[in-house]
Amino acid sequence: MSRGKIRSLEWIRTLRRGVLATKLRHCSRNAIGVQTASDASINGDQEEHDLCNWDELKFSFIPTDYMYVMKCSSGESAFSQGHLTRYGNVELSPSSGVLNYGQGLLEGLKAYRGDDNRIRLFRPEQNALRMQMGAERMCMPSPTAEQFVSSIKQTALANKRWIPPPGKGSLYIRPLLLGTGPILGVAPSPEYTFLAYASPVGNYFNGPMHFSVEDKVYRAIPGGTGGIKSITNYSPIYKALTQAKAKGFTDAIFLDAATGKNIEEATACNIFVVKGNVISTPPIAGTILPGITRKSIIEVASWLGYQIEERAIPLEELINVDEAFCTGTAIAIKPVGSVTYQGQRVEYKTGEGTVSEKLRRTLTGIQTGRIEDTMGWVVEIE
Amino acid sequence: MSRGKIRSLEWIRTLRRGVLATKLRHCSRNAIGVQTASDASINGDQEEHDLCNWDELKFSFIPTDYMYVMKCSSGESAFSQGHLTRYGNVELSPSSGVLNYGQGLLEGLKAYRGDDNRIRLFRPEQNALRMQMGAERMCMPSPTAEQFVSSIKQTALANKRWIPPPGKGSLYIRPLLLGTGPILGVAPSPEYTFLAYASPVGNYFNGPMHFSVEDKVYRAIPGGTGGIKSITNYSPIYKALTQAKAKGFTDAIFLDAATGKNIEEATACNIFVVKGNVISTPPIAGTILPGITRKSIIEVASWLGYQIEERAIPLEELINVDEAFCTGTAIAIKPVGSVTYQGQRVEYKTGEGTVSEKLRRTLTGIQTGRIEDTMGWVVEIE
Repeated sequence: MSRGKIRSLEWIRTLRRGVLATKLRHCSRNAIGVQTASDASINGDQEEHDLCNWDELKFSFIPTDYMYVMKCSSGESAFSQGHLTRYGNVELSPSSGVLNYGQGLLEGLKAYRGDDNRIRLFRPEQNALRMQMGAERMCMPSPTAEQFVSSIKQTALANKRWIPPPGKGSLYIRPLLLGTGPILGVAPSPEYTFLAYASPVGNYFNGPMHFSVEDKVYRAIPGGTGGIKSITNYSPIYKALTQAKAKGFTDAIFLDAATGKNIEEATACNIFVVKGNVISTPPIAGTILPGITRKSIIEVASWLGYQIEERAIPLEELINVDEAFCTGTAIAIKPVGSVTYQGQRVEYKTGEGTVSEKLRRTLTGIQTGRIEDTMGWVVEIE
Repeated sequence: MSRGKIRSLEWIRTLRRGVLATKLRHCSRNAIGVQTASDASINGDQEEHDLCNWDELKFSFIPTDYMYVMKCSSGESAFSQGHLTRYGNVELSPSSGVLNYGQGLLEGLKAYRGDDNRIRLFRPEQNALRMQMGAERMCMPSPTAEQFVSSIKQTALANKRWIPPPGKGSLYIRPLLLGTGPILGVAPSPEYTFLAYASPVGNYFNGPMHFSVEDKVYRAIPGGTGGIKSITNYSPIYKALTQAKAKGFTDAIFLDAATGKNIEEATACNIFVVKGNVISTPPIAGTILPGITRKSIIEVASWLGYQIEERAIPLEELINVDEAFCTGTAIAIKPVGSVTYQGQRVEYKTGEGTVSEKLRRTLTGIQTGRIEDTMGWVVEIE
């Protein structure tokens, strides 16, 4: 074997070692069985509740058994039948659209194991529709809603043993839609790959969030991609996020680029404020992610008798509200403990008796089956 | 072998077939030899001037023999010694930073074969510095300038037989810096890969450019990533570009997001206007790519006696200029034939006797060795 070939393989092996090392850090070694897609485990028959230290789950990556792959080949406009495959590295052309020009979308949703041990997804068709909307904006074909939801069900069930026990967390599923065909000039990719992988995650409820306000870097711009889940929305704000974290904040709140005066959202969650019986959140107008948790909380809050306002929220209004909270698939609902801007720190009520706590209990109750789902949001997959 | 494994391999094979098909479309079949990094060809001893139909080269991807790979592993801040490897697909974690959050940078530069048959690079250290600047903005480590330039030289020489004959084009080299470590939450990747691949390209001088003006979608925003070569700058403007092309335009000119009044640049090139002896171009202020061709043209023009102004250029000024032209590594310098905004089309002088033609001849003369390089811009690599 030639030297070049050997080196190439070494690189691949290094990549594999990286994945394995991640796995070993989080999980018990005996969990890493060599299995195949035809094993019983693909139907979830093999459950291992001692697979991980479920009490120490965070929102960090733990590789699971299977992923789902579906392709849209050159010259075609639709995705062909997808399939489950062992979780592992994927091969990509170095000249693929996603690696060179960032042509990609992500989604995020969770599979929950309820007290009744049933497994539920939460509004997966909403993620499918959002991916379709994003694909249209990014000049990509997208899976049908049926293909999308089916892929999520299959991914959840194939990795069933990784769904944490009730109350310990959930299985986070990450669908990706990527421009994988080779392209040299700046133009849409000739081929696309849909991929869904999964990782068990904790409840992510490690206390309230503390925000700084970012007034130099904007997350989105009118006419841009802030309203879709494009992969290009995230790394450009790493620096603002890193700087906020270095100062001890959980995250940063971004302002609207058009005026620099209104709050928009944080790095990866929508934001709400509460004043008396009124709950307000910035409107969906192209620069804010139309969060599925956001949308659901608006409905839940309305159902619980709160008045909901979707409107521009000036930064200075944060001084006068009772509560603030964030929503997102990863965090569900999380209270905001404080917001700091130009040295001024405003603190908010958190914990028992707050509106956000009431909303959190209701939403997570529906998601896990403790509260009856009268909305038709929950999809039981087993 | 299990069904899942088989399916996984099928996908990989499909990817490989895709690359091969691209190769077959453009090049003669006998060019696809199975070679290794230890073959003589790595030093460019094997030249095949009938490898491609050099007269039909465009700016589209043709796979070559070798690529260069270098890694920065988890916990390290510097890139280790890189190496050449056969060109081919790369393995990536599905949860890598670049696939999920767009953490990546690109560069572009060319190797030229002069009439004297020598091979030259043009200011490669400038690309190295721009990648470093971009890496700092995107929270990534970057190769040293020495590592970067060495990788480009090695990539050019290893693919020497793909450098077109004098006057037929050049070898375009595409360095990428990618977040390749697995990461679930929105945060910088734990590992990075530098990769450089190459493709022969034509002179790309197929007549003047005809622009529309895009006034709804912006390419960049103050505080954003418009001033660096982030992969996230390109796919978000595919839709505007596709719409412009569908109307028969070559590309779109984007306006500044802050005021919506001044021209900034096109999808992948800087823009200049000429009025009498004065050449003007928008200033580098974070929203415009600091193009290396742009920078060089400013120096060349000044050297030829033109007055240069780097300043905001209002859209309406385009009505009153004599000429307009674009610069970029892919296109070198290209005249603008017309700009159309809200149904009004303004045409410009192109061809013999124009300022842009004079500048083009001088720049390409320096790049290919026909004109003496008194600036120290050209790096002869053989």
